[in-house]
Amino acid sequence: MNKPMVAYIIGRLMQIEALLLFFPIVVSLIYRESIRYSLSFLVVALVTGIIGYLFTKKQPVVKNLYAKEGFVIVSLSWIVLSFFGALPFVLNGDIPSLTDAIFETTSGFTTTGASILDDVEALSRSSLFWRSFTHLIGGMGVLVFALAVLPHMESETVHIMKAEVPGPTFGKIVSRLSKSAQILYYIYILFTIIVIAALFLAGMPLFDAIIHAFGVAGTGGFSMRNGSIAPYDNVVIEVILGIGMLVFGANFNLYFLALTRHFKEVFKSEELKWYLGFVGGAIILITVQLSMTAYGHREALRHSFFSVTSIMTTTGFSTDNFNTWPLFSRMILLFTMFIGGMAGSTGGGIKVSRVAILIKTAFSELQRNAYPNRLVSVHFEHKAIEGKMLKAIANYLIVYIMVFACVLLLISLEVDDFTSSFSAVAANFNNIGPGFGVVGPDSSYSFFSPLNKIVLSISMIMGRLEILPILILFSPGIWRKRA
Amino acid sequence: MNKPMVAYIIGRLMQIEALLLFFPIVVSLIYRESIRYSLSFLVVALVTGIIGYLFTKKQPVVKNLYAKEGFVIVSLSWIVLSFFGALPFVLNGDIPSLTDAIFETTSGFTTTGASILDDVEALSRSSLFWRSFTHLIGGMGVLVFALAVLPHMESETVHIMKAEVPGPTFGKIVSRLSKSAQILYYIYILFTIIVIAALFLAGMPLFDAIIHAFGVAGTGGFSMRNGSIAPYDNVVIEVILGIGMLVFGANFNLYFLALTRHFKEVFKSEELKWYLGFVGGAIILITVQLSMTAYGHREALRHSFFSVTSIMTTTGFSTDNFNTWPLFSRMILLFTMFIGGMAGSTGGGIKVSRVAILIKTAFSELQRNAYPNRLVSVHFEHKAIEGKMLKAIANYLIVYIMVFACVLLLISLEVDDFTSSFSAVAANFNNIGPGFGVVGPDSSYSFFSPLNKIVLSISMIMGRLEILPILILFSPGIWRKRA
Repeated sequence: MNKPMVAYIIGRLMQIEALLLFFPIVVSLIYRESIRYSLSFLVVALVTGIIGYLFTKKQPVVKNLYAKEGFVIVSLSWIVLSFFGALPFVLNGDIPSLTDAIFETTSGFTTTGASILDDVEALSRSSLFWRSFTHLIGGMGVLVFALAVLPHMESETVHIMKAEVPGPTFGKIVSRLSKSAQILYYIYILFTIIVIAALFLAGMPLFDAIIHAFGVAGTGGFSMRNGSIAPYDNVVIEVILGIGMLVFGANFNLYFLALTRHFKEVFKSEELKWYLGFVGGAIILITVQLSMTAYGHREALRHSFFSVTSIMTTTGFSTDNFNTWPLFSRMILLFTMFIGGMAGSTGGGIKVSRVAILIKTAFSELQRNAYPNRLVSVHFEHKAIEGKMLKAIANYLIVYIMVFACVLLLISLEVDDFTSSFSAVAANFNNIGPGFGVVGPDSSYSFFSPLNKIVLSISMIMGRLEILPILILFSPGIWRKRA
Repeated sequence: MNKPMVAYIIGRLMQIEALLLFFPIVVSLIYRESIRYSLSFLVVALVTGIIGYLFTKKQPVVKNLYAKEGFVIVSLSWIVLSFFGALPFVLNGDIPSLTDAIFETTSGFTTTGASILDDVEALSRSSLFWRSFTHLIGGMGVLVFALAVLPHMESETVHIMKAEVPGPTFGKIVSRLSKSAQILYYIYILFTIIVIAALFLAGMPLFDAIIHAFGVAGTGGFSMRNGSIAPYDNVVIEVILGIGMLVFGANFNLYFLALTRHFKEVFKSEELKWYLGFVGGAIILITVQLSMTAYGHREALRHSFFSVTSIMTTTGFSTDNFNTWPLFSRMILLFTMFIGGMAGSTGGGIKVSRVAILIKTAFSELQRNAYPNRLVSVHFEHKAIEGKMLKAIANYLIVYIMVFACVLLLISLEVDDFTSSFSAVAANFNNIGPGFGVVGPDSSYSFFSPLNKIVLSISMIMGRLEILPILILFSPGIWRKRA
């Protein structure tokens, strides 16, 4: 293990977090809040910055990183960021319990949006801002951010990038690292500003527009109202948010292609078709069932559109308590929880491209058995997928199921209801937020024991980093000295 | 498609079923039942026999079979057997609805043990016998039976055997087909007789002993009492049944090895260790939790031992309503439902060997990512598993999940409770019988709509045949003429 290098990069990230902690101080000053709020952020910023500085004082001699070191750095940085990011809430008293504050901040950075707050409206403006700001930071990956800031370390960062970027990558864009990280970062900020403007024009107060735009950008889902989006009761706002979530749940490479006028390639994207197909199919099925129950056609379509875009993109905003929907509709939502966003988006879940390839693999397995002498291959994005990639995707599913089962078992010790336990794990592991049963959109995760709050926090980080980095971090022998 | 050959083999099987239908006639005569019972079986025996005779009148010219034809024959034969086997129940009025009778008989032949009967004690002796006899027949696979009877077709039957024998095969025993089918068949009958004798000596009436031994042998689980095994309230009987279920849930190759004095190989069996490990682990975990609730240590161990052996071997007998257990214990039971019996046993589920290899694959995936330059291989039964086998097992899991999700979606349209829907599909797809919620051990499947009774029946056959044969049967283009 190249410990000096690990410490150096973590230290750099802590310095960046220290800088980011000044934003809520500005918010606190604007709203003339009690001094303890700005102080809480200032103290944590200084402590984080100083520790970060100490870590970076000594330039590492050996700069190259092995694969496992990339995984360790990524895992540690999410844990470290979540820990220090949680401290202001404890200091200013908005979230007095450290475990609760860590859960909330991890949920923010991982863009999950699960909350332990029963009354979010009681929070100060600066705390609300920082809470949602973590979505924006977490969204494109703090490390992509770091890459844009640390361009001189380019060649050493390949392994970090590999562990960080969500989903299997099929494009060649991400190869030129820091350059493309910067471009993705500009697109990301631009889109966020557009969502803020659109929400503001649709009638949301500016502060609310900023908070919810952060939730959309990171596909996180923290709201500043106890009823999430429902209290605004504004269809235009819901449509803006819905489209916004779809945009941030899509592969950012597509925007890169569109910007460079490769429109043909955008329209040819097979993953995009699957993504829109899943979303469209889910909206139609749920609309049909809800229309046949208490809802009128219009309300059925309204809530179906919003809930599907919110859940499938793993954002987690809500306009309706889908907990009360008939099971078939809830099952459709549950399935979209697992599918998640496209590869290369800020969304969580298994990712559209993986699910599409898994479905195709199932059909190819039928062919292979019925006609053992035929050569059967799986195509995606207009080319045959090689065996190594297929194996990696199948094995990801296997690891996913194993870890899911273990977490579910731990949670089931505490929550004596299968629906709630299963959906709580699904909602945290896939970075959505609300689930069904006692963790539905009208309730919070406040009642969990400290132990399970930590278990769910780790699940969120596992979901965000696609499991392997965290498992590798906890593998025995990983800290052994380099040969 | 070699239609003459398909018809010929199905015809042969129908003739065998016709012969088997004479057993319940004997039972009916012994118990001096109303004439309509023996008549119902006689009429169906004659009709089945005659149709079977017509199908076999013309010897097929081309005898060789392609893989897909093997799958089609296996799928069709289970459907045909279940259909004709259901007719006596309808004729004698014990199960008046044809859909119900088909569900019950499919459940019998597939050794699932799920029942639509709210009062099984109202059934006649002959119907009870036939209902459980289907477990015995289904247990070792009607086609293994057929192979023993049709030795002259040896070389043509490789593909049937391949589609029929449950689980991936790691031994070389099954290669000499009809010979080993006969030996397995003798072991099977011998063990069944031992269970009958033991149950009788432990105080069960002879008829009850036969019925429950059939349920054990096929790992089916049909009882003749509404409370399953609970009404006997006899620990010795429960221990006999528990051990019996474990024996029939184990790989029959092991008994073959033991008979031929290869004890060393038996003790070296890795799958056996995993099997006993899963069973032992589940019993301990559930015993600990139940001890801490309303149960005393002794009762906790008693019900934990019986329920785990019953559910993990996919039998489905019950001594206690595990529906009322705390969720953690129910989750452990649910997990064992998916694991199922060993390969080459009469048990269902994903199979112990597959699960063990999947777990090892997950660990190898960690290694492969942390150390990309190392050669990582998965070992099972003391040798490296080749990539083709690993791929087949991973892909089986993928197909399994896809089909499971589709069936779950259909069931969720009707049962508005996630626990019940999920466990109903799990219990049928893995050939167990009872699930949780409204399909728990104290209730039946009677309330399902006819459509979903058929869906669940097909799920049972899919589970029994490991999915692919049924999917291939319903694939478009499969009936095309041979080139």
